[in-house]
Amino acid sequence: MTLMANMTWYEFNQRKDEDVVILPIGSVEQHGPHLPLSTDTIISEGFAELLGEHINGIVMPSINYGYKSQPASGGGPLFPGTIDLNGLTLINLVKDIIEELIRDGIKKIVIVNSHFENQAFLLEAIDLVSKCMPEGTKIIMMSWWDLISQETIDKIFDEVPFPGWALEHAAITETSLILKFRPELVHMDRLIDEKIEEVPKYQIYPIPKDLVPKSGLLSIGRTSTKEKGDLIVTEALEQMIKIVKKELL
Amino acid sequence: MTLMANMTWYEFNQRKDEDVVILPIGSVEQHGPHLPLSTDTIISEGFAELLGEHINGIVMPSINYGYKSQPASGGGPLFPGTIDLNGLTLINLVKDIIEELIRDGIKKIVIVNSHFENQAFLLEAIDLVSKCMPEGTKIIMMSWWDLISQETIDKIFDEVPFPGWALEHAAITETSLILKFRPELVHMDRLIDEKIEEVPKYQIYPIPKDLVPKSGLLSIGRTSTKEKGDLIVTEALEQMIKIVKKELL
Amino acid sequence: MTLMANMTWYEFNQRKDEDVVILPIGSVEQHGPHLPLSTDTIISEGFAELLGEHINGIVMPSINYGYKSQPASGGGPLFPGTIDLNGLTLINLVKDIIEELIRDGIKKIVIVNSHFENQAFLLEAIDLVSKCMPEGTKIIMMSWWDLISQETIDKIFDEVPFPGWALEHAAITETSLILKFRPELVHMDRLIDEKIEEVPKYQIYPIPKDLVPKSGLLSIGRTSTKEKGDLIVTEALEQMIKIVKKELL
Amino acid sequence: MTLMANMTWYEFNQRKDEDVVILPIGSVEQHGPHLPLSTDTIISEGFAELLGEHINGIVMPSINYGYKSQPASGGGPLFPGTIDLNGLTLINLVKDIIEELIRDGIKKIVIVNSHFENQAFLLEAIDLVSKCMPEGTKIIMMSWWDLISQETIDKIFDEVPFPGWALEHAAITETSLILKFRPELVHMDRLIDEKIEEVPKYQIYPIPKDLVPKSGLLSIGRTSTKEKGDLIVTEALEQMIKIVKKELL
Amino acid sequence: MTLMANMTWYEFNQRKDEDVVILPIGSVEQHGPHLPLSTDTIISEGFAELLGEHINGIVMPSINYGYKSQPASGGGPLFPGTIDLNGLTLINLVKDIIEELIRDGIKKIVIVNSHFENQAFLLEAIDLVSKCMPEGTKIIMMSWWDLISQETIDKIFDEVPFPGWALEHAAITETSLILKFRPELVHMDRLIDEKIEEVPKYQIYPIPKDLVPKSGLLSIGRTSTKEKGDLIVTEALEQMIKIVKKELL
Amino acid sequence: MTLMANMTWYEFNQRKDEDVVILPIGSVEQHGPHLPLSTDTIISEGFAELLGEHINGIVMPSINYGYKSQPASGGGPLFPGTIDLNGLTLINLVKDIIEELIRDGIKKIVIVNSHFENQAFLLEAIDLVSKCMPEGTKIIMMSWWDLISQETIDKIFDEVPFPGWALEHAAITETSLILKFRPELVHMDRLIDEKIEEVPKYQIYPIPKDLVPKSGLLSIGRTSTKEKGDLIVTEALEQMIKIVKKELL
Repeated sequence: MTLMANMTWYEFNQRKDEDVVILPIGSVEQHGPHLPLSTDTIISEGFAELLGEHINGIVMPSINYGYKSQPASGGGPLFPGTIDLNGLTLINLVKDIIEELIRDGIKKIVIVNSHFENQAFLLEAIDLVSKCMPEGTKIIMMSWWDLISQETIDKIFDEVPFPGWALEHAAITETSLILKFRPELVHMDRLIDEKIEEVPKYQIYPIPKDLVPKSGLLSIGRTSTKEKGDLIVTEALEQMIKIVKKELL
Repeated sequence: MTLMANMTWYEFNQRKDEDVVILPIGSVEQHGPHLPLSTDTIISEGFAELLGEHINGIVMPSINYGYKSQPASGGGPLFPGTIDLNGLTLINLVKDIIEELIRDGIKKIVIVNSHFENQAFLLEAIDLVSKCMPEGTKIIMMSWWDLISQETIDKIFDEVPFPGWALEHAAITETSLILKFRPELVHMDRLIDEKIEEVPKYQIYPIPKDLVPKSGLLSIGRTSTKEKGDLIVTEALEQMIKIVKKELL
Repeated sequence: MTLMANMTWYEFNQRKDEDVVILPIGSVEQHGPHLPLSTDTIISEGFAELLGEHINGIVMPSINYGYKSQPASGGGPLFPGTIDLNGLTLINLVKDIIEELIRDGIKKIVIVNSHFENQAFLLEAIDLVSKCMPEGTKIIMMSWWDLISQETIDKIFDEVPFPGWALEHAAITETSLILKFRPELVHMDRLIDEKIEEVPKYQIYPIPKDLVPKSGLLSIGRTSTKEKGDLIVTEALEQMIKIVKKELL
Repeated sequence: MTLMANMTWYEFNQRKDEDVVILPIGSVEQHGPHLPLSTDTIISEGFAELLGEHINGIVMPSINYGYKSQPASGGGPLFPGTIDLNGLTLINLVKDIIEELIRDGIKKIVIVNSHFENQAFLLEAIDLVSKCMPEGTKIIMMSWWDLISQETIDKIFDEVPFPGWALEHAAITETSLILKFRPELVHMDRLIDEKIEEVPKYQIYPIPKDLVPKSGLLSIGRTSTKEKGDLIVTEALEQMIKIVKKELL
Repeated sequence: MTLMANMTWYEFNQRKDEDVVILPIGSVEQHGPHLPLSTDTIISEGFAELLGEHINGIVMPSINYGYKSQPASGGGPLFPGTIDLNGLTLINLVKDIIEELIRDGIKKIVIVNSHFENQAFLLEAIDLVSKCMPEGTKIIMMSWWDLISQETIDKIFDEVPFPGWALEHAAITETSLILKFRPELVHMDRLIDEKIEEVPKYQIYPIPKDLVPKSGLLSIGRTSTKEKGDLIVTEALEQMIKIVKKELL
Repeated sequence: MTLMANMTWYEFNQRKDEDVVILPIGSVEQHGPHLPLSTDTIISEGFAELLGEHINGIVMPSINYGYKSQPASGGGPLFPGTIDLNGLTLINLVKDIIEELIRDGIKKIVIVNSHFENQAFLLEAIDLVSKCMPEGTKIIMMSWWDLISQETIDKIFDEVPFPGWALEHAAITETSLILKFRPELVHMDRLIDEKIEEVPKYQIYPIPKDLVPKSGLLSIGRTSTKEKGDLIVTEALEQMIKIVKKELL
């Protein structure tokens, strides 16, 4: 694995044609009282680097900002510290970067995402690029939660019931992942037992201030551990490697 | 309920301030061998008109085209007859229409959606409008599947297991809804027992041709009945009315 | 003729290469005290379906919203119920739909327009598409009034003098056409004998409120009859068929 | 009248609040074998300067490029030397300039247009600006042909019948106007007696090469004289002054 | 040299393949108490025409409006009379014009710029065009100050020290150039001995009103003469011809 | 100084009103055989963090991608590993981020830039935001090279002559800065004594491959030392603090 940020262009130029380039994308978004604003970026970078190690990939500098936080998957835009990009901006940003990679001859691109709300806009960017990309180019987008089996979910949610992935915001899985990737940034002592009481079945604007708990916690984070982080990473990483090997190598 | 399409502007002008305006949005998208391309629009219009009847709402002409079909929720863009809008186009279209309503003094707007892939882009449009709309304006977006209880799901999926909402494409719920709203457009005799074998855990471009069954069916549609359509409509409609009453009336 | 909305994708997929696809586009615009807001859409759909019948065409779901109403051809944006799209939005909307048709292999596309103000923006959309469309693709745009002969004009304006096409808004020709296509939506008893007194020779913004009559009528609608609607339809349809046969078949 | 181009900013800054600022807009478009490519710009500038003289207006530097030439009003885009802007570009260009004027405190703006195809896009630009311009700001758009009476038309078309304004391209009125404004640029000896044989009743893309005469002439230009140019200028100018006085002064 | 504005399309059509087309671009920007608002356009046109004479080029109508004036190179946007285009507008404007030239078969394009702030946006436009232009097409952008040697600078700044090109706004070089190209527009008697006292080392918004002298002068203009204008023109023109010959002929 | 990335939203929410938020922006661009692709980002982050320490500022996650590299200031787009954003993308990206900060109540924003080509587009973003930002908001953009005195330049260029800031790419100042900030990423042994032979006085597209040395070095990097890095940092930082104190505190 090499970090593109640290490579000289000579080194980047010596990559082989089968090399995979990995683009991590995160967000700046509230993650409750105990997790850092860049939680999603940390997770994307963590996975991207591990994946890069196993497939000899090149990890690009992260896109540190993401699409607008939604109340029922990220707490929404009203939390100070949540910095949201407009849809068009994110589409163009990802499109430009991929097109530049393609112009440099890259044929195998993996986008590692950890911010729920990014998904539709990342796909729009890739779709637009794919309308006229050279034969043989392949672009994959992966979000870690899509790679977790029911079995692992059962292990992680041993005590607290699984609320579904959208609501797993700043809760057990993300807390466990930061406990693994950047434990010094987790303040377990500040974590409180709060969750969204009633998941909204519709969207309303202006977004009401009391839609989500004041803490920004959507689900219970108690029982988060580094070991659960290991569990998630092990499985998701295995899946990522499998996918890349199947589709790109 | 009045259809805005059929109203004169004099009639529209006589609406009261508390009147709710309802905008149905659908898609032109493959729905297997047995359902029409405008399935989503028919469902949105069906719900919009029923809702309109109960809350004395005004139903606008539909947006007949929607965002790009995705393989794991609509079969994807490769099916002939699927007509996809770019993200920016849909955002602007919905934004313009809402802004015009607001300029006409409308304060209560409900968007009824039935196309899974529209969601993120509808919210982006509403969010952009909401950044500078007059005090007191409220915009709600509802997708019928978010309003169905586990109890009803259990009734509908009495024989076939529930595959999750994304995969419920051209399957039991949509077939049952068209059997209710436009039975003459359903070809039950052409329905085959096919479903997506392995739900992709990631997105890859160019989209592989064999990702979804050739029929475009993502889940089993067998056991669809008008009665199940009634069940869905009854519950979703009740919820819609409840939401509108709570938030807008 | 088949309505694409009602077709399954299997059916759409069985079309022949010489099949023509027809896209009706209308507007939501004030049409005086006696005609519905969707007058233009009704007329476009009416013509599209008749044309489709004669050339075995496929009629797409309508674009129900159009470009901004202008005072001297539609009364302008100040009438409640007139819902105007921005130019860029309409351009992109039509461009996306045509490009999707082309991606599906369609080579013969007819746009049927009935909203005066749409014209420049429809042409811009088609022009942008045409810059890189496959050899052999042909796109036609038709507005019914361009197809009416002086002879027919003389018959229709037997009593009331012909005010020119731009001013024929919510007047004899449109009223007659709705009397033909959707007579139940015409309120002849509410029609009053009002017209724009002085046609503005220039455009001024902000648009003055008294530029057009309060009723929204730009010309005299008296003497409208279903028979005149028949006359218009017969001639315009004949021309449409002739054009399509000459250019596309 | 002062040309803004020649003013220092000190001079511009000394204008009074009731001063009118005039923006001429033209095109670079084929005008047959005998008229210059900037015919429209010359006419717009000619009128703008004359108007400026009578109302003590400030004439801005021209927008020298305009919207896409259409076959039946300008010959279309296939003629070498015709340089067409995209719709969005022209909209933004005019919008930016007007918004800058408004930021400088200007309240009275007149756009003088001489290119048929510009109209819809100029209005779109003005409409977008007008959505949030300061109270009291007024923007007028004028095209000279809208200001010509039937009486004058009868005088000008004494021999050749009046083909309608759209087709009056590079024909008697424009030739006469250039004979007035820039006689040295008119090559009457090269003018031939050619006109569009059959005016297309619909638009088709790709634009056929034989839609208009090879010369680019849409109507007969014979009988053009400087005197007819005088006639047009006298009447149009009188109208322009009247309009500005009524609306702005 | 021929001015495209004055050519008929027949004449434009007779150009040879090796003909160079030259596009001058300027601005409407304050240039102190003594120079006209269109100073930059005058200079660009002046150079374009001289260059055209020497290489038998075709000079297009100018783009009369440019990108936003910056305090430390043009005084900034706060001066009345400075009319600024948004970046996207200028990019699209230049892109459209070049693309139209290319569609007309032009292969050799020279953009002559005289407005410091235009540079980045002109290059963006050219870069976007160049991504898909036909083999053999070449586009050059030149700003006259880049072509002046140290030797000439020393001659021009014989008394007043050279402040650097960015600050040479409305100062000796531009004044001398207008004294050469349009002496009747220079008011030497109004020129005062003022200059920016402290060149800002950073940019701050909102732009402070006292950042630049009230006169808009950034550097000393004293000692400007027509002879210095000659000197600049002679050298820059020689360089322009050399560049065009080397790269395009 | 706190890194926003590492803060919880609770912590971010406890900032005081006078707190300054700092946004570093870099690029992914070739920097010769010896410096990393993220050289600019490293420098921006380095300065941002040091500045943050001295003014108790909050440092945002970096924008890791920048505007298109130009041959004469960065080697240009042809070097593999140089990833360029389109102008519009960068404008929107920066605009969105600043607008979100403002929505969160931030009034004091500093953008720290280290990529020459970013400048015009950053200013465009800030200008667009500034058109409607709340009273009292201030946004500063700083590039470190603008803050270096002639005295320091003389010290740094003790042996090699100063080539001007644009050409100081991957040369003494940047190498010295990376020797200071991230010495382990500098490969002094690979540095060769190469520089651009003839600085182009104009821009030409397509960009010729031999415009800059194959190494990507534009100027001599020999004599780079950590000590020189210290010198630059000391002075630039002192200036930055001074500016922030003067303008924001």
